[in-house]
Amino acid sequence: MKTILPIQWKNDILILLDQTLLPNEVVYEEFETIEGVWDAIQVMKVRGAPAIGVSAAYGLYLGIRNATERDFPSFYEELTIKAAYLASSRPTAVNLFWAINRLKQTAEQNKHLPISEIKQLLLEEAITIHHEDEEINRNIGENLLTLLQDGMGILTHCNAGALATTKYGTATAPMYLAHERGWNLKIFSDETRPRLQGSMLTAFELQQAGLDVTVITDNMAAVVMSQGKINAVIVGCDRVAANGDTANKIGTLGVSILAKHYGIPFYVAAPTPTIDLETPTGAEIPIEERETSEVTHRFGIATAPENVQVYNPSFDVTPHENITAIVTERGIVKPNYQENLVKVMKRP
Amino acid sequence: MKTILPIQWKNDILILLDQTLLPNEVVYEEFETIEGVWDAIQVMKVRGAPAIGVSAAYGLYLGIRNATERDFPSFYEELTIKAAYLASSRPTAVNLFWAINRLKQTAEQNKHLPISEIKQLLLEEAITIHHEDEEINRNIGENLLTLLQDGMGILTHCNAGALATTKYGTATAPMYLAHERGWNLKIFSDETRPRLQGSMLTAFELQQAGLDVTVITDNMAAVVMSQGKINAVIVGCDRVAANGDTANKIGTLGVSILAKHYGIPFYVAAPTPTIDLETPTGAEIPIEERETSEVTHRFGIATAPENVQVYNPSFDVTPHENITAIVTERGIVKPNYQENLVKVMKRP
Repeated sequence: MKTILPIQWKNDILILLDQTLLPNEVVYEEFETIEGVWDAIQVMKVRGAPAIGVSAAYGLYLGIRNATERDFPSFYEELTIKAAYLASSRPTAVNLFWAINRLKQTAEQNKHLPISEIKQLLLEEAITIHHEDEEINRNIGENLLTLLQDGMGILTHCNAGALATTKYGTATAPMYLAHERGWNLKIFSDETRPRLQGSMLTAFELQQAGLDVTVITDNMAAVVMSQGKINAVIVGCDRVAANGDTANKIGTLGVSILAKHYGIPFYVAAPTPTIDLETPTGAEIPIEERETSEVTHRFGIATAPENVQVYNPSFDVTPHENITAIVTERGIVKPNYQENLVKVMKRP
Repeated sequence: MKTILPIQWKNDILILLDQTLLPNEVVYEEFETIEGVWDAIQVMKVRGAPAIGVSAAYGLYLGIRNATERDFPSFYEELTIKAAYLASSRPTAVNLFWAINRLKQTAEQNKHLPISEIKQLLLEEAITIHHEDEEINRNIGENLLTLLQDGMGILTHCNAGALATTKYGTATAPMYLAHERGWNLKIFSDETRPRLQGSMLTAFELQQAGLDVTVITDNMAAVVMSQGKINAVIVGCDRVAANGDTANKIGTLGVSILAKHYGIPFYVAAPTPTIDLETPTGAEIPIEERETSEVTHRFGIATAPENVQVYNPSFDVTPHENITAIVTERGIVKPNYQENLVKVMKRP
């Protein structure tokens, strides 16, 4: 199976798939400097929270591997400067800060060691973060697979795919694992306006890996469900509140209502880091509105009259009662979410 | 109010708004020959079943007004040849045949008159068809208006607007009439992938007329409803079956399910010619599938990987139980549709 690997580390070089050129060109680019990685994150050659975090970890290592400082305080100062620089590439990306901080902690915890050894440990930590993400996704996939059967039709929305992570993706993980086992799933990918991540990314990566994928426009989900072609919906998530309400790409809410109407199970693939027990309900999740040109000028031509009003929320919140199960790397969470999300977060 | 008039007849000249250039350019083109009208229909400078019918009626008159035949049989033969030619412009457009046949019948019914007078009667019949359409739309609008109130938020899908008819449109008729009365309705227009008639046509014509219109992508309808911004959904239709099941532009089914979920009334604007008592239920309405490039290359660039599978049905069927009322020019039809559609069709 030719699974897309958006991030690879080979011979001390970071290799990223340039996602700005998809689906029209598949170009892998090599990075040997922190400045190159900064640029790749900034212009979204690499995207998706987990993928950004892993790239940043490697990027920080590239930034200090040739550092000439010989004492820890000055080395750590250099590391901090480089980390701040990297963090400025996409200032709102939480995983980016998280990954960078893990490397800084690694350095601090090993301050007694020679600088050359600390550098080596930083690289190992980046590789660990990389492998952990793969492992999380594989486990989410294995857990979701227990809810599916060979021959099913699956609808997904947006790209919670390999391209947004390091391998397998989250919502797509059971699709790849099923394919490895020789199952025939029929995947329908909502194109996901306005940015079309469903048709430009999800359909691309599933097709590359040899899966059976069909693109539909978002407004075709209902008719496909009404025809009995969909046995389960699987989506990713940006944040899960303590009561199970889930924020995800705009359009997810509508899909959840359609699934409920047709009695189709609706599953959310959620790595535990996206479960936020500090947020009581979906009402407290802030919803970002993005520029109107995403809707009116997405592809260089005007698809709406000049100066027309546009509403462009980037996310919506699916209420917990529309969700059949929230599937994490640690296990499957079913209602009552208020109680069961706390339990899964306590699990090792 | 600057209502868009897609079709005008002035000084023996047919003036059509070139809809292929919308929303970027507003160009009115003059036609004095049947060949010009044939081309305008064929390349979709004029579109929408009622608008095509009216244009064809004028086009047929333009085709025979300079005919030199002096006896009825040879004049009628010429009329038949020109009618067949015009009918070849869009062979599946029912209103086109219907309008042409009305002119042929007018000629036959007046065969005893001099050819010059028959020609005049054919023009008058074309003008009658034109005015009848306006009247139907105005009456649908008046009837729908009794179901609405000042200040409401209304969602519509695709373009059942003035641009598809001669004036007012069907689903948009109450919006224009409300505006004439000084009401403030807040209209939300689904962009309606893949062809984007909602953002390119509906938003354009409502904006031109000074109405308050906001464009959203199709997958934003649910979140807008969840925020309490929508008090009614109004859509057009392509065909209504005897039990009330309604075929309309792809995506209408999904909107009807969302409206039902949120307890929002869902109204279908239906001129009686679209009510087809010969078709028992929606299951008997054939659904056209269109070319995949509408989904993958609509914006002039590839928005999906090459050779990906695409499902592109042009219409879907909304089951009658999702429809609050079907509003015709003769009155408002509520469930039981099976009985009440027969009644409204018998009304004068």
